[in-house]
Amino acid sequence: MHRYRSHTCAQLRKTDVGNSVRLSGWVHRVRDHGGLLFIDLRDHYGLTQIVADPDSPAFKAAETVRGEWVIRVDGEVKARLPETVNPNLPTGEIEIFAREIEVLSAAKELPLPVFGEPDYPEDIRLKYRFLDLRRDTLHKNIMARTRIIAEMRKRMGEVGFTEFSTPILTASSPEGARDFLVPSRIHPGNFYALPQAPQQYKQLIMVSGFDRYFQIAPCFRDEDPRADRLPGEFYQLDLEMSFVEQDDVLSTMEPVLRAVFETFAAGKPVTQKFRRIPYDEAMRTYGTDKPDLRNPIEMQAVSDHFRDSGFKVFANILANDAKAEIWAIPAKTGGSRAFCDRMNSWAQSEGQPGLGYIFWRKEGDKLEGAGPIAKNIGEERTEAIRQQLGLADGDAAFFVAGDPKKFVAFAGAARTRAGEELNLVDRDRFELCWIVDFPFFEWNEEEKRVDFGHNPFSMPQGGIDALKGEDPLSIKAFQYDMVCNGFEIASGGIRNHLPETMVKAFEIVGLDRKMVEERFGGLYRAFQYGAPPHGGMAAGIDRIVMLLVGAKNLREVTMFPMNQQAYDLLMNAPSEATPQQLRELQLRVAVAKKEG
Amino acid sequence: MHRYRSHTCAQLRKTDVGNSVRLSGWVHRVRDHGGLLFIDLRDHYGLTQIVADPDSPAFKAAETVRGEWVIRVDGEVKARLPETVNPNLPTGEIEIFAREIEVLSAAKELPLPVFGEPDYPEDIRLKYRFLDLRRDTLHKNIMARTRIIAEMRKRMGEVGFTEFSTPILTASSPEGARDFLVPSRIHPGNFYALPQAPQQYKQLIMVSGFDRYFQIAPCFRDEDPRADRLPGEFYQLDLEMSFVEQDDVLSTMEPVLRAVFETFAAGKPVTQKFRRIPYDEAMRTYGTDKPDLRNPIEMQAVSDHFRDSGFKVFANILANDAKAEIWAIPAKTGGSRAFCDRMNSWAQSEGQPGLGYIFWRKEGDKLEGAGPIAKNIGEERTEAIRQQLGLADGDAAFFVAGDPKKFVAFAGAARTRAGEELNLVDRDRFELCWIVDFPFFEWNEEEKRVDFGHNPFSMPQGGIDALKGEDPLSIKAFQYDMVCNGFEIASGGIRNHLPETMVKAFEIVGLDRKMVEERFGGLYRAFQYGAPPHGGMAAGIDRIVMLLVGAKNLREVTMFPMNQQAYDLLMNAPSEATPQQLRELQLRVAVAKKEG
Repeated sequence: MHRYRSHTCAQLRKTDVGNSVRLSGWVHRVRDHGGLLFIDLRDHYGLTQIVADPDSPAFKAAETVRGEWVIRVDGEVKARLPETVNPNLPTGEIEIFAREIEVLSAAKELPLPVFGEPDYPEDIRLKYRFLDLRRDTLHKNIMARTRIIAEMRKRMGEVGFTEFSTPILTASSPEGARDFLVPSRIHPGNFYALPQAPQQYKQLIMVSGFDRYFQIAPCFRDEDPRADRLPGEFYQLDLEMSFVEQDDVLSTMEPVLRAVFETFAAGKPVTQKFRRIPYDEAMRTYGTDKPDLRNPIEMQAVSDHFRDSGFKVFANILANDAKAEIWAIPAKTGGSRAFCDRMNSWAQSEGQPGLGYIFWRKEGDKLEGAGPIAKNIGEERTEAIRQQLGLADGDAAFFVAGDPKKFVAFAGAARTRAGEELNLVDRDRFELCWIVDFPFFEWNEEEKRVDFGHNPFSMPQGGIDALKGEDPLSIKAFQYDMVCNGFEIASGGIRNHLPETMVKAFEIVGLDRKMVEERFGGLYRAFQYGAPPHGGMAAGIDRIVMLLVGAKNLREVTMFPMNQQAYDLLMNAPSEATPQQLRELQLRVAVAKKEG
Repeated sequence: MHRYRSHTCAQLRKTDVGNSVRLSGWVHRVRDHGGLLFIDLRDHYGLTQIVADPDSPAFKAAETVRGEWVIRVDGEVKARLPETVNPNLPTGEIEIFAREIEVLSAAKELPLPVFGEPDYPEDIRLKYRFLDLRRDTLHKNIMARTRIIAEMRKRMGEVGFTEFSTPILTASSPEGARDFLVPSRIHPGNFYALPQAPQQYKQLIMVSGFDRYFQIAPCFRDEDPRADRLPGEFYQLDLEMSFVEQDDVLSTMEPVLRAVFETFAAGKPVTQKFRRIPYDEAMRTYGTDKPDLRNPIEMQAVSDHFRDSGFKVFANILANDAKAEIWAIPAKTGGSRAFCDRMNSWAQSEGQPGLGYIFWRKEGDKLEGAGPIAKNIGEERTEAIRQQLGLADGDAAFFVAGDPKKFVAFAGAARTRAGEELNLVDRDRFELCWIVDFPFFEWNEEEKRVDFGHNPFSMPQGGIDALKGEDPLSIKAFQYDMVCNGFEIASGGIRNHLPETMVKAFEIVGLDRKMVEERFGGLYRAFQYGAPPHGGMAAGIDRIVMLLVGAKNLREVTMFPMNQQAYDLLMNAPSEATPQQLRELQLRVAVAKKEG
């Protein structure tokens, strides 16, 4: 017989009754039932119930074991009595009568329990991650993560992509976030950087003549702690294709990601055909470029109804600023004064002067708009607004006014708030869409200059002609995001593979040819030697897993995460370097004394 | 029709004749045949011949294109004349008569040619890696690498392993080589380290209750340049299993790696059952723990034949040193004075005093040993040696004498030399074996103390009792290597999961409990809370790919390698950090002025 086990803890069934078996695993629970000791023995695969009766030579050992000890058990498989069968357990029809128990590894008093799913302070959980990971939910999340990634690999292979790894010790690249640097010992005073994304490498792979690349790519960004990001490293499903236009990438990747979602959605509906929503439309309709389409509320401009109306606040805003608009947030079932007042208070708590509203109710047979705005603009305009928004008795509409650029984020938040408060959001579904036609440039208000909107490597719509002839801020990029339930889960673009177009684009943000050569030398040089048109995208794996398993936190879908302060409590990193290490790197630590 | 292509450059066949098609790709070659222009158009998938005749509107564009330009070609598929069919090309029965050619991207004068496989200086190749990768051999190697890794993944999944990624920003760990450090900005003066291997994490995964882990793991070692290593980063097939003994790991992984080799061996024979050779036996038989078993030579001790013999040099060595031995290197077909003298000269060039030999030849009917040694020891001893070694007419034997510890490396080199010079090595096969029972400790002559032989995390054979009771240098470890054709391709062990055994082992090399806690805190702590017996191994992916594709150099199987000086010529890394970056990290570069 094998030294440790003849079966796993999930394997034995009624057909095994009478057999001598050997199991090994962790003591999940010990219970004393009238002299008999019951041990739930747990391994990666499942649980099996062990019984030690006082006559068994194993009883003495069974009395000593405690939770999370690792033991080996030899014994005989017996059928459970009908009344003690556990239908929730695959091994629930049998139990093992222990003949011999060997302690393979004892456990000290546990700093956090493994049995059950209690809430425990994050720092204890991270320091003892090896215990935390034994808990059922986390174990399942991590296994789901692996299966989701395997499914991505499989699907990518099926549509002709090849997986390549790109270097992790590479060059610093100004892609937006801050690089992690790695000092070189062989070239002292010089530094490698960890890749923020394999952006330049994947484009180089295309220029090297490979056609469809993907990678489950580790990415590194040295960002300040943020609740919705893992500090340090994260994973992307990164991909790139040659000889493609935007529609090729979208129509190749939509079935891949839909299939991944469907496979792990546990029966929840998944969008079958992803809408392609232009950025401008998304902003106007949802107040965000990451709309949660489970929320049915769609905003509409209703400016004309307020122009020269009796509601002077809005009428004046429109009269004084040609850019000003009034947007309505229709809120079905929101038609009570109590709810409208709650929304108004919430808006004030967000720093807004308030949130105007109309709500509709039946007075006898007559449907009428109520609230101060309705009173001020009169019945006819109120009814026109209702008709435009398709609202009815018991519904409400909220209004935001001013320069849309300035109020759009708040309008989006109000839409979200109304949808959630009114339970209009169907949480048990995955609503996916594409956001397309992002602006290529944006106005950097702080530095009073034009900047790249997103990705400097994207192809501007209209190409070099647009860059030469049009207002930069009106130019769109061949750039797209995939959004699920209000989260951006992927982002990509058709790349600018033409060096002259690249130089022109950088010129507009104030970087000359020399700077392009200096900062993006590898890519810029490559484009001089026959570059195919290409494009691709990258999907955030951690976020997708989190959505699919329904976790609240990225640390719940990551095996060994750092804490929010980018500190690894399990391995004690980062830590001080030894003087010898610093000497070899020819570095000096010059930490400023903390004030205090 | 698609903007760039209706087919790839490998797709069109005779059945497509008459169709209008669109292809895109790189201009591989242009030839002018009596006014007609022939363009070999290349993409990731293959080659297609394009023809432009002077009447075609495409002719003018065809005249301008040069090697490695990227073009789109519209045209009609025509059958080639029987005499121009190219049977070596899947598309060799057809050609495309171009109607329109669009230049998608021009190329400057090429710094290295893509057509053909000329030798070019490594630095040019690395700087223009995107051109080098377009060459047929490299393109194929990289694709093979991907397929080999995919095969590993598939096989590991089939035998129940789950893939997990372990952190890349982690703690410094004294596993032997030097760590790359990553300064932390959020915790200034502190450093993460890149993992030399996921050793501690994979053991923690086992302690966390997962059963069979694997990973295609990036590993990082800051080593001085070595010809047989990639600087910086490399990849391992890393794995670990719980509740196993040594035989479990070996018998699980042998079929996996045999299958990987068989799948990519291109018909070359692969060892069916891997021998398990104890380390001591490997050293005595092959003079190395990485034996090339394609070389049939097996060394034998022949000391007794020389004791008190007429060959005084050897007799005295044996008489004066109880540890001294004489080993024979039998060399079938090596029985000529010319060859023996060549071996002798080679030995002298290696710094040896010479290499004694006997060779056997027929004098009439009589088989006799020739050379100075045979003369000195006489006919009887010479014949006894011949019989022990199983040699015959035309064979030779070489002899090394002294303390085996000191001569073993040279003896191994002589065995290799003889096998290769005599063409005894069958190059067209993959000979795989296990080396087992490595010494747990070794004598560190420099520091005059006992040190770990290999991996401090291994379980000593005999456990804590052996550590307490036996001469440390006699203790073996549950530790094993896999060797192929003279290269170590994998290494592993059964781990020491018992904290007290761990402390005892470290004590023997002079590190106390406190040091263990400090250096391996995560693992040491984990072992206190119920650790399963576990073991595993790691296989070197780069090396395996190199063997399988028959490449001479690790850079030929790596997409974007650094050069030997750990410099990335393509991306220009490492490079200087900006003053702002250094300020944020609170670091100062203190590069010592070079002398000279």
